[in-house]
Amino acid sequence: MTPAARRDALRALLRAAELDALLVTDLVNVRYLSGFTGSNAALLVPADGERGTRLATDGRYTTQVAAEVPDVPVLIERDCARGLVAAAGADGIRRLGFESGHLTVDAHAALLEVARDNGEVELRRAPGLVQRLRAVKDETEIDALRTACAAADAALADLIAAGGLRPGRTEREVAADLEQRMRQHGADAPAFDTIIAAGANSAIPHHRPTDAVLTTGDLVKMDFGALRAGYHSDMTRTMVLGPPADWQRELYALVAEAQGAGRAALEVGVEVAAVDAAARDVIIKAGRGAEFSHGLGHGVGLEIHEAPALSATGAGTLASGLAVTVEPGVYLAGRGGVRIEDTLVVRPDGAELLTLTGKELLAL
Amino acid sequence: MTPAARRDALRALLRAAELDALLVTDLVNVRYLSGFTGSNAALLVPADGERGTRLATDGRYTTQVAAEVPDVPVLIERDCARGLVAAAGADGIRRLGFESGHLTVDAHAALLEVARDNGEVELRRAPGLVQRLRAVKDETEIDALRTACAAADAALADLIAAGGLRPGRTEREVAADLEQRMRQHGADAPAFDTIIAAGANSAIPHHRPTDAVLTTGDLVKMDFGALRAGYHSDMTRTMVLGPPADWQRELYALVAEAQGAGRAALEVGVEVAAVDAAARDVIIKAGRGAEFSHGLGHGVGLEIHEAPALSATGAGTLASGLAVTVEPGVYLAGRGGVRIEDTLVVRPDGAELLTLTGKELLAL
Repeated sequence: MTPAARRDALRALLRAAELDALLVTDLVNVRYLSGFTGSNAALLVPADGERGTRLATDGRYTTQVAAEVPDVPVLIERDCARGLVAAAGADGIRRLGFESGHLTVDAHAALLEVARDNGEVELRRAPGLVQRLRAVKDETEIDALRTACAAADAALADLIAAGGLRPGRTEREVAADLEQRMRQHGADAPAFDTIIAAGANSAIPHHRPTDAVLTTGDLVKMDFGALRAGYHSDMTRTMVLGPPADWQRELYALVAEAQGAGRAALEVGVEVAAVDAAARDVIIKAGRGAEFSHGLGHGVGLEIHEAPALSATGAGTLASGLAVTVEPGVYLAGRGGVRIEDTLVVRPDGAELLTLTGKELLAL
Repeated sequence: MTPAARRDALRALLRAAELDALLVTDLVNVRYLSGFTGSNAALLVPADGERGTRLATDGRYTTQVAAEVPDVPVLIERDCARGLVAAAGADGIRRLGFESGHLTVDAHAALLEVARDNGEVELRRAPGLVQRLRAVKDETEIDALRTACAAADAALADLIAAGGLRPGRTEREVAADLEQRMRQHGADAPAFDTIIAAGANSAIPHHRPTDAVLTTGDLVKMDFGALRAGYHSDMTRTMVLGPPADWQRELYALVAEAQGAGRAALEVGVEVAAVDAAARDVIIKAGRGAEFSHGLGHGVGLEIHEAPALSATGAGTLASGLAVTVEPGVYLAGRGGVRIEDTLVVRPDGAELLTLTGKELLAL
């Protein structure tokens, strides 16, 4: 879908919400709707047609914006949102939606003054409209996600083949090695701060790599992804250095079963909370519910965390084209933890797996 | 300064602002005031003493928060801000400041409801208080910045020594090479997306590396930095592949003169706008004012961009201990651009340079 087609889809949502236009200030949403990737921008999208659509950015981006956004008039102004509210007023727009889940209280207060001074613009809270569109990926976006996932798969395969996961290396060294290999396989950057967590550290869900040394007998949890052309992959694998102990095998089997149940629950029309429950129930029945301390997964795309949230408190149902992670974990404080995570796309005939690295317990 | 000493300094600002407490939701500020580095947290700091100080985070961080924050009681709750507003109400706090430059309109609306249900808490806008403290660095922070700058200096020296800047390589390859070398010199990660811009691309102030090939005769602009222990370095150097043309020499000499004038203007008590003007006037006098399309510099520390802004519209004066960049640039669309940037610390006896790579025009 072109940016223009996305703006067209947004217009239908604006009309349904009885808005004359939307002021888009979230830069990821600006990128989605226009193609612009600069670090300071806002976009005005009127509900009644392309006329009046405007992108604002500052003088550093004059050249870049001309190349990236050939089809929208550009306003060069440092305070992008202010410039667009004034423009909306001049265009006779009255009910102007703003991204209330993104705009800060101070920024909103400043825009209220601009609105007061520019015709009869009335600022209305309009959270999450573009996020709703972004959640459903088209085939071009799914291809981008697939490429990002492939870079992560290939990097991990390389790392293992090169003996990069071995006792004596530090978590930090392994993380740097894995990130470098993702780059060699086409990643623009890591999708987020790589987690390499060995031994007892693997029981810390969001551990950051330290100078801790990998040791025989450790569980090693690796949560990492590649960023490629704006799209993020997300995968976690956990392995053991040397022969697994019984408790490690059991823990791994439990999480693998829960992860499989979560993946199997990814069907069009299912409640997101039911997907979380499908995996969580496996862990609760094993008496480990308290040690699975986070949601099952999240949407992934232009952001590493986006709609929908697959959690017990999440709302809504699955639609075809959603890209989500499924990542149960069980963490035994002081001993070690296991998390297994894939990135998948919801399809009418079941979920398509994008992260293809195997999920058998690997003993290195 | 310990996190506890920083909270003490904050309390003086809270009392001056007639607040009973501050709700800190900006994660960088939470880190600064507590040492906690997780991705979901908020902090409550009462004005009248440490009693009542509380950190909220979610169940993923139980282990990490205990290790990182030994001296503050922890509330485990997913909606951190909500939990702390309720706690503030129970403690009898009335005038509760919130970070209105960070909290979104929707998050604020949700907290208003919590405040209504919990005693007589009144939410008051209190932007930028912690940022004001953070702008002035202590010697431990300056050491961290120095170490981050040294990693970038060493990486660039290595890259040049290894012949890594040569015709035939792509911008993307050079960026990956430089980032890898920063890691080898102790960087946890790049401080921001590395800019490598060759030939006409160097005229794009915020260019992202592409598959464009470095060619003899190109200006090559490199804007990069290292992240180390939470602190960011920021440096730009521009060089020429092969013997420089006259226009390249002249452009370089102009920017170097402006950059020197900006550095020389860094004195305690000087208006930030005057620092911008010191460099900008050099460029304006040469008739290139329109081609210097951004501010002169910015504060740098736990964030790559923080207070103060060194720009024509910036307010305030320089204090000892500020860490700032000085980075004028002149960009000739379609031909090439030069930017020269250092990270420096304002000291009573003049600015201390932290980025030590030489600034003569290098022809490789």
